[in-house]
Amino acid sequence: ANRKLLLLPGDGIGPEVMAEARRVIDWLARSGRARFELAEDLVGGASIEATGKPITEPVIERALEADAVLFGAVGGPQWDSQPFDNRPEIAILELRKRLGLFANLRPAPVFDALIDASPLKPEIVRGLDIMIVRESTGGIYFGEPRGIETLPDGTKRGINTEVYTTPEIERVARVAFELARKRQGRLTSVEKANVMESGLLWRQTVTALGAEEYPDVQLSHMYADNCAMQLAKNPRQFDVIVTGNLFGDLLSDLASMLTGSLGMLPSATLGAPDAAGRRHALYEPIHGSAPDIAGKGLANPLAQILSLAMLLRYSFDMQEDAAAIEAAVSNVLASGMRTADIEQKGTARIGTRTMGDAVLRELDKL
Amino acid sequence: ANRKLLLLPGDGIGPEVMAEARRVIDWLARSGRARFELAEDLVGGASIEATGKPITEPVIERALEADAVLFGAVGGPQWDSQPFDNRPEIAILELRKRLGLFANLRPAPVFDALIDASPLKPEIVRGLDIMIVRESTGGIYFGEPRGIETLPDGTKRGINTEVYTTPEIERVARVAFELARKRQGRLTSVEKANVMESGLLWRQTVTALGAEEYPDVQLSHMYADNCAMQLAKNPRQFDVIVTGNLFGDLLSDLASMLTGSLGMLPSATLGAPDAAGRRHALYEPIHGSAPDIAGKGLANPLAQILSLAMLLRYSFDMQEDAAAIEAAVSNVLASGMRTADIEQKGTARIGTRTMGDAVLRELDKL
Ligand SMILES: CC(C)[C@H](C(=O)O)[C@@H](O)C(=O)O
Ligand SMILES: CC(C)[C@H](C(=O)O)[C@@H](O)C(=O)O
Repeated sequence: ANRKLLLLPGDGIGPEVMAEARRVIDWLARSGRARFELAEDLVGGASIEATGKPITEPVIERALEADAVLFGAVGGPQWDSQPFDNRPEIAILELRKRLGLFANLRPAPVFDALIDASPLKPEIVRGLDIMIVRESTGGIYFGEPRGIETLPDGTKRGINTEVYTTPEIERVARVAFELARKRQGRLTSVEKANVMESGLLWRQTVTALGAEEYPDVQLSHMYADNCAMQLAKNPRQFDVIVTGNLFGDLLSDLASMLTGSLGMLPSATLGAPDAAGRRHALYEPIHGSAPDIAGKGLANPLAQILSLAMLLRYSFDMQEDAAAIEAAVSNVLASGMRTADIEQKGTARIGTRTMGDAVLRELDKL
Repeated sequence: ANRKLLLLPGDGIGPEVMAEARRVIDWLARSGRARFELAEDLVGGASIEATGKPITEPVIERALEADAVLFGAVGGPQWDSQPFDNRPEIAILELRKRLGLFANLRPAPVFDALIDASPLKPEIVRGLDIMIVRESTGGIYFGEPRGIETLPDGTKRGINTEVYTTPEIERVARVAFELARKRQGRLTSVEKANVMESGLLWRQTVTALGAEEYPDVQLSHMYADNCAMQLAKNPRQFDVIVTGNLFGDLLSDLASMLTGSLGMLPSATLGAPDAAGRRHALYEPIHGSAPDIAGKGLANPLAQILSLAMLLRYSFDMQEDAAAIEAAVSNVLASGMRTADIEQKGTARIGTRTMGDAVLRELDKL
């Protein structure tokens, strides 16, 4: 049976960078490596324009039926005045929730060729390779009660609820332990157990799981404020980090920025495997829709292309093909070609399409 | 009437660094600048040892009576097994709550002499001078309901509540607007209004207050994840940042780390002024109790001494004396004297006491 992919390019630069990933998908077919059944649909602002909603039920259903979703980016100033529960980003939250995508994998590698783009000193980030596993269907993002209420005296009160249960903590910790096992065998679990009971339960649960099932993984615990500091001070101390939805949001973005190449970084968000080992999964660049440069052919398509590589790796266990794409990207960077966001002295500035061409040329050489 | 200070040295290096700040207090008296009525008491682990509790009611009352509290640091491995609500840090939370210390001021300046200690490239941090105002008596730190409950199926559920009311947001925003007015006139308000209603209320409230009372201050809004990134990428874009308790915890620590001189940084936590303009206030270094070097005379006393300078500035409007202490510290650094934590090639390593001597010598020259 063909592997089913749903492409959701979204807004801004989403469609442009998705077009380049699509050419890599075509190359996979052309070179006889893999054939995918492709569908494409609207999401985010594009969907609001067409349907009034950031994502519609039929699109969610198509995503549920697909083997994997490749997502672009959503949002833009024209939708800033949408009501709170109808903004383009709601599509991302909806997809995470409806597909049960609870484990958000955020690799933060430093590309050798781009080391000077890091705001950190090169001696601090050289060789950096962190994997942050962020819980993504729970915590304060989804907890109830929530909302804004008006008090008798006319003042208002905004409320959100952070809530984690042991099974929620265990399943995301398991993903992180498994990854640590395949990497350097070290896992750092991050919370604020010193002020939050939900963090205390997090720490206790991860500790118990580690002792029972992953005694071979070296587990440590860190408070989120300290983790933010340690990421800036000495990021190489980390192998895999596992944390909740909200801390993961800040810490994974911080780690990404430290690599100096936001425009390069992919992500995966995985659901629970069913009895047959199949699981829902969504792959997306971590960059946004960059409305300021949209439609100009300037955007960097490499994060979208590397998201496709992650898709091959995690959804189809196509390690070799994933590695081929990653190698092609490395070679292009080594050859000095750069989109504007990663330009440096002595490199050649090219556009989105030319970058796609360069990757395909490297792929053809392999 | 004499000005009343309560000194709470605490644990670890707390007593050592407090001793040096005390010598500066003595110098203020000796040189005829200001006389303080001093009291000293137990807090944190030291208080647990003596009384079973991290802070006792009489100490809270003494803090309520004092014009200002100068705090050292608390905590250490010997109290790691204390129950959740009896850990040394509870003393800090108790003091914030009972004294109504809702505005935590966290300056993050880069000291010219220490610029190479920053993990960021010097061209990114040179001249950095951020002031983070963190709400410190509300949000998820204190919100109810909270706790860990056991569900019917035996699994557990950890809960915390993020809650902010308009008056809580307004009073801390006011502190930040006022500070911005005296600085570069720019304020960045930070939340996650895109996923949290409490953040949405925060944004709306700060916006309304700014438009009504501070039209001269340039107000902008930023999501917390983006703020973490922007602090790493280009921290100099910020003048004053105002944010809630939890985001403030991470972001202020991150900003501190970026300065490269954690051991140098003071903080102030202020309450609301009463009719007479008096307000409770607590001043403390941002570093911890550093149990590993405690009692060895190695700790850097400068953050404690600079906390005293903040105390003079914010609690007694003694701008000149505060500036004198800050100048003395700068001169000592410029002369190349360093405790171990800020040692660099070509500088002289000295201990806690010698650093105190050096500051006093500089003060005598002024
Ligand atoms: C778009 C937004 C809802 C989202 C989040 O906060 O999770 C984004 O910042 C992310 O990290 O994917
Ligand atoms: C000690 C702890 C309760 C505290 C906090 O999280 O607020 C600390 O990290 C701080 O920033 O003062």
